[in-house]
Amino acid sequence: MNYSPALAQLIAALRRLPGVGPKSAQRMAFHLLERDREGALDISRSLAQAVATIGQCHRCRMLSDSELCPICANAQRDASLLCVVESPADVVAVEQSGSFRGRYFVLMGHLSPLDGIGPAELGIAQLEVLLDSGEVRELILATNPTVEGDATAHFLGELATRRGVRASRIAHGVPIGGELEYVDGGTLAHALAGRQTLT
Amino acid sequence: MNYSPALAQLIAALRRLPGVGPKSAQRMAFHLLERDREGALDISRSLAQAVATIGQCHRCRMLSDSELCPICANAQRDASLLCVVESPADVVAVEQSGSFRGRYFVLMGHLSPLDGIGPAELGIAQLEVLLDSGEVRELILATNPTVEGDATAHFLGELATRRGVRASRIAHGVPIGGELEYVDGGTLAHALAGRQTLT
Repeated sequence: MNYSPALAQLIAALRRLPGVGPKSAQRMAFHLLERDREGALDISRSLAQAVATIGQCHRCRMLSDSELCPICANAQRDASLLCVVESPADVVAVEQSGSFRGRYFVLMGHLSPLDGIGPAELGIAQLEVLLDSGEVRELILATNPTVEGDATAHFLGELATRRGVRASRIAHGVPIGGELEYVDGGTLAHALAGRQTLT
Repeated sequence: MNYSPALAQLIAALRRLPGVGPKSAQRMAFHLLERDREGALDISRSLAQAVATIGQCHRCRMLSDSELCPICANAQRDASLLCVVESPADVVAVEQSGSFRGRYFVLMGHLSPLDGIGPAELGIAQLEVLLDSGEVRELILATNPTVEGDATAHFLGELATRRGVRASRIAHGVPIGGELEYVDGGTLAHALAGRQTLT
């Protein structure tokens, strides 16, 4: 299709968004140009501003446009509980559960030696400073239940116990509201192995 | 969730894209900020440039950043066939079928008196100039097979015949490769009513 150059350029750019293929990119471009030019400018400005101002929180590595992210800056949060997650989206997921009042540490990945991702890339030195400060009583490991996530949790658990900080791993098993019939074998095996005695 | 202000602003802006809800907007924002800042700037620039430069083709009303869109500017296209469609996406669809070598006229909507959309909003005066030029031999009406699209086609058909220009409507019926069993009743009724004698 012979698009005008600026239109072709816009459709190509929109395809860089995750989950957006050629058809959706075209739909987005036409929608914005035909019906929401103000929205197009809003997105354009927000992207430019976000790229210019958003870095990482100096304490927990969360995406933030200030030196400390809103969670680290909040004195109401319990600094003795530190929850380690792989990504900013994981912070959002835990926050939305409404069940955690401690702080976070965002690895921005997981250990993956083959991809050249080691402790340095995950900011482990920064985590060690937090653990050495004596403020943290428990390190809650909430990395994903994948091979890499488990290995990362194991590595960080050793790091914590070596410093006398308690390390824990969030529970993995059958999701609440899920039906055994539809749960995959790996999860079920994990749920069985991790069974707890009723008291 | 307590996002940083610039992050909250970006997620809100991305929700203006069609088909993007809060979850996808967050995923897009995190993806761009964590892994593709160059892409974010590319999208930002392309949007600003598109809004600044893209208007409508002076001849066919297609979105275009030049006075004539690439199709109207192409002397190889048959000016005696004019295909009327409702939207720029329809032009793309017909072009991709590879079966049309004429030109287009884009209404940017359909007649809808209740929404205040009449002939003036659809650029009918511009279409009349084209019909009066004597260049057009056939007006192909490819508006959507909806109540409004049909009404618009009927209106334009009269306009053309009054000027001695042949008007035709694209065929509607069972899609090629479709199975009768799964075709809806309205389409089937239309296909039966529009049956053609085999010669």
